[in-house]
Amino acid sequence: MYKVDLNSDLGESFGAYTIGMDEEVIKLVSSVNIACGFHASDPVVMRRTVERAAAAKAGIGAHPGFYDLMGFGRRNMNISPSEAYAYVTYQLGALSAFCTQQGVRIDHVKPHGALYNMAGKDYELAKGICSAIYDFDPDLILLGLSGSQMIKAGEDIGLRCAREFFADRAYEDDGSLRARTKEGAMIEDENEAIERVVKVIKTGKVTTFPGNELDLKIDSICVHGDNAHALEFVRIIRKRLADENIEIAPLSQVIG
Amino acid sequence: MYKVDLNSDLGESFGAYTIGMDEEVIKLVSSVNIACGFHASDPVVMRRTVERAAAAKAGIGAHPGFYDLMGFGRRNMNISPSEAYAYVTYQLGALSAFCTQQGVRIDHVKPHGALYNMAGKDYELAKGICSAIYDFDPDLILLGLSGSQMIKAGEDIGLRCAREFFADRAYEDDGSLRARTKEGAMIEDENEAIERVVKVIKTGKVTTFPGNELDLKIDSICVHGDNAHALEFVRIIRKRLADENIEIAPLSQVIG
Amino acid sequence: MYKVDLNSDLGESFGAYTIGMDEEVIKLVSSVNIACGFHASDPVVMRRTVERAAAAKAGIGAHPGFYDLMGFGRRNMNISPSEAYAYVTYQLGALSAFCTQQGVRIDHVKPHGALYNMAGKDYELAKGICSAIYDFDPDLILLGLSGSQMIKAGEDIGLRCAREFFADRAYEDDGSLRARTKEGAMIEDENEAIERVVKVIKTGKVTTFPGNELDLKIDSICVHGDNAHALEFVRIIRKRLADENIEIAPLSQVIG
Amino acid sequence: MYKVDLNSDLGESFGAYTIGMDEEVIKLVSSVNIACGFHASDPVVMRRTVERAAAAKAGIGAHPGFYDLMGFGRRNMNISPSEAYAYVTYQLGALSAFCTQQGVRIDHVKPHGALYNMAGKDYELAKGICSAIYDFDPDLILLGLSGSQMIKAGEDIGLRCAREFFADRAYEDDGSLRARTKEGAMIEDENEAIERVVKVIKTGKVTTFPGNELDLKIDSICVHGDNAHALEFVRIIRKRLADENIEIAPLSQVIG
Repeated sequence: MYKVDLNSDLGESFGAYTIGMDEEVIKLVSSVNIACGFHASDPVVMRRTVERAAAAKAGIGAHPGFYDLMGFGRRNMNISPSEAYAYVTYQLGALSAFCTQQGVRIDHVKPHGALYNMAGKDYELAKGICSAIYDFDPDLILLGLSGSQMIKAGEDIGLRCAREFFADRAYEDDGSLRARTKEGAMIEDENEAIERVVKVIKTGKVTTFPGNELDLKIDSICVHGDNAHALEFVRIIRKRLADENIEIAPLSQVIG
Repeated sequence: MYKVDLNSDLGESFGAYTIGMDEEVIKLVSSVNIACGFHASDPVVMRRTVERAAAAKAGIGAHPGFYDLMGFGRRNMNISPSEAYAYVTYQLGALSAFCTQQGVRIDHVKPHGALYNMAGKDYELAKGICSAIYDFDPDLILLGLSGSQMIKAGEDIGLRCAREFFADRAYEDDGSLRARTKEGAMIEDENEAIERVVKVIKTGKVTTFPGNELDLKIDSICVHGDNAHALEFVRIIRKRLADENIEIAPLSQVIG
Repeated sequence: MYKVDLNSDLGESFGAYTIGMDEEVIKLVSSVNIACGFHASDPVVMRRTVERAAAAKAGIGAHPGFYDLMGFGRRNMNISPSEAYAYVTYQLGALSAFCTQQGVRIDHVKPHGALYNMAGKDYELAKGICSAIYDFDPDLILLGLSGSQMIKAGEDIGLRCAREFFADRAYEDDGSLRARTKEGAMIEDENEAIERVVKVIKTGKVTTFPGNELDLKIDSICVHGDNAHALEFVRIIRKRLADENIEIAPLSQVIG
Repeated sequence: MYKVDLNSDLGESFGAYTIGMDEEVIKLVSSVNIACGFHASDPVVMRRTVERAAAAKAGIGAHPGFYDLMGFGRRNMNISPSEAYAYVTYQLGALSAFCTQQGVRIDHVKPHGALYNMAGKDYELAKGICSAIYDFDPDLILLGLSGSQMIKAGEDIGLRCAREFFADRAYEDDGSLRARTKEGAMIEDENEAIERVVKVIKTGKVTTFPGNELDLKIDSICVHGDNAHALEFVRIIRKRLADENIEIAPLSQVIG
């Protein structure tokens, strides 16, 4: 039987500012990526989010990002691999403490936003990130873009790796995501997006933007909980996966 | 035989900014309090500082403070006990991750600056701090001002507590430090400061500012490594303690 | 004819985080207090907010606060009058630059949140704030709590002062706001709140929590634009003021 | 007679952290670039620095940088031209307010660190910066790298532009600075550095790293005040300029 993880970002509120429908989306996914206070969240939000994730028995992931709250971690920053090591360690540890207090554990780490994208293309940066994760806890799972330098670095370091698929994004022939600045970057049609999800899970293939068939091993689908529409889309995916007999399971079960 | 711990703050540099003669002072003390990125330090500095403390085999303490880098954590902030809980957890976890990577452990927690002072007088705030420490790791030692509300809260929560003495500060009859804004708050004469240290260790008594004898159980002396003069003073204390057959030992050995 | 200003906080969004129904509330008030990047807002939001205020021809106020984004400037911080001087100057200048670019000017300054409350009771702190305002531009109007130390300091410094009334808050006999932590602090009944507004404008008197009549000179009513309900309340106040022949006018016209 | 400006960064301390020998270097230069609180400095430091610059009658420049205190503004950040516009405006206004209070004016703007370097190569980013400066005050002088995209954008916007020369850096044939990561990037020999300064002022030519003669119009030399050695180097340059009858004058006099 086919298995796949559904993951969503969680706990991105900050102080008086609220983002995300956390209470709704957590019921619909098998793993959550919890912001760690650099690009979003604060200690009070983190505590509440870990409590919520523990109660929902969701797979818990750390979601470390750039120290750029003003840019929500979405802007490239030219940090060194050594800085990346320290920043990821700091955020991992902070989240881990709230998990310890709740009697739960971090299962995976998914870098956020620009850090995810940069490390997907920069092997040395990815190695800084992956070394930090491994040195902190070698049992953690790295969640990264299928086929990226980050997955390559994670494997070289000795981490278990899970490969992520983006339902709403077009892929280039080399397996990279088509840049958002280019036309056709987004899969606007939801039915098409869902067909792509089912196909990649069952056949391990995705049709690229240029129109070729690309082999892509994937373990997790990234979904969103920002608004009611996004939630509805998750419900539709869930129903279709059930219809196709594809089981939704946490990362540790999917990658075995 | 008498035993006492010598503790000093460490790792307070930030980015391009350097503070403290860390390499020198670490050789002279038995415990260090490492800044955790809120009132001072950053992840790169924390990693380097933990490496240094591990190499020196110093007792490692977390030194959590207010999120006020601009004020170096020295300005009172009106946070709730619940916010204190979350802020301390976050900082403890972050430091802990660097320790895990280096194969060492946090021994104690000493709140910094205004957080230390406020929690010394505010039982509810202190309880927020102490609960965070206990829920993270019940074996951690709380280092606080002898006779303060923070020690009281720590004991009530079930933490092992170590009592700190300030060689260069005058005490009031109730055991609180004489406010820095008042005359006579600082013990300017170094010989007098050292006599007070020896006396409080051997007799458990300190002469208060009003001139009375106060019972004070103490386990650790706070010293500084900011400049060459401060370091010289630590060397003088060490020599005098040796002359008096008072052993300098890490907190865990002092409090037994 | 009676005149009163209606003021509302504006431009409190930050990065990816949105707060407030700015486009709606700006149509309903005569003055806006624009956040300056310390307790809320960022430079991109400030530019957009000043453009919006300029287009609406609203009276523009600077809304400087504590450097505490995580606490939204609502937590007391123990800063010195000299720090307050520098922090207010910095924020005033930053907002002023966006105004200069848009060809408009700052009319008034209203400290935010905990800074407003602390300066309302601490004359020296208030003097630090008022000196900064005066030294930057002696023509600026200080907007503060009627009867507060801040108004006293503003008058002593030589600033034009406008007095603010809170429709939804109970007053103590000394003119201070009843602390939010005490019962009866909020005027929950909207009709009662509106009656109090009309009464204080027409008679210069307010019934205090203990039940006495207090003389209170007021120039501006603080209203909110956080949500649809708050906006509806502003519309009701506006209608009632019109029915009572009370003109809504910007601060400079009200204080003459 | 030849004229040249000597400029140095000033006011880079932050809170409890001190950097730079500001009191010494200010006596040796004709212009200072004052940090504005993003990559370095804070409002208290800015106030003190403007007072110092006003007392020394130095030409005052704003030194806006990236919002990256942890990296001292030296790390590239991928911000949009529109974000650059807002960030520069904010910092310019903040510094300007302290100048207004002291009865002095900002003469020039020199972007800091990575913002300077990125805008030197990215015309659109440079245009965002230069538009902000022009819209705030069209009389301000832009200080940028001779031959850079920033100078080009400044001229296109209508700003007066001053061209900066780095005594201790090698140049490529296209007028860009040789990257620090490459060998030969720094002119280690101080005599050679001074010869290059004299030559570029008198002949308008510099020998590039590949060994060619490059035409370079320059108005200002960047010097440092970080330590005693740097100060000594400034004194040597000053003496040599005097010997060569090259007058040291503020930017406004040099560019006429």
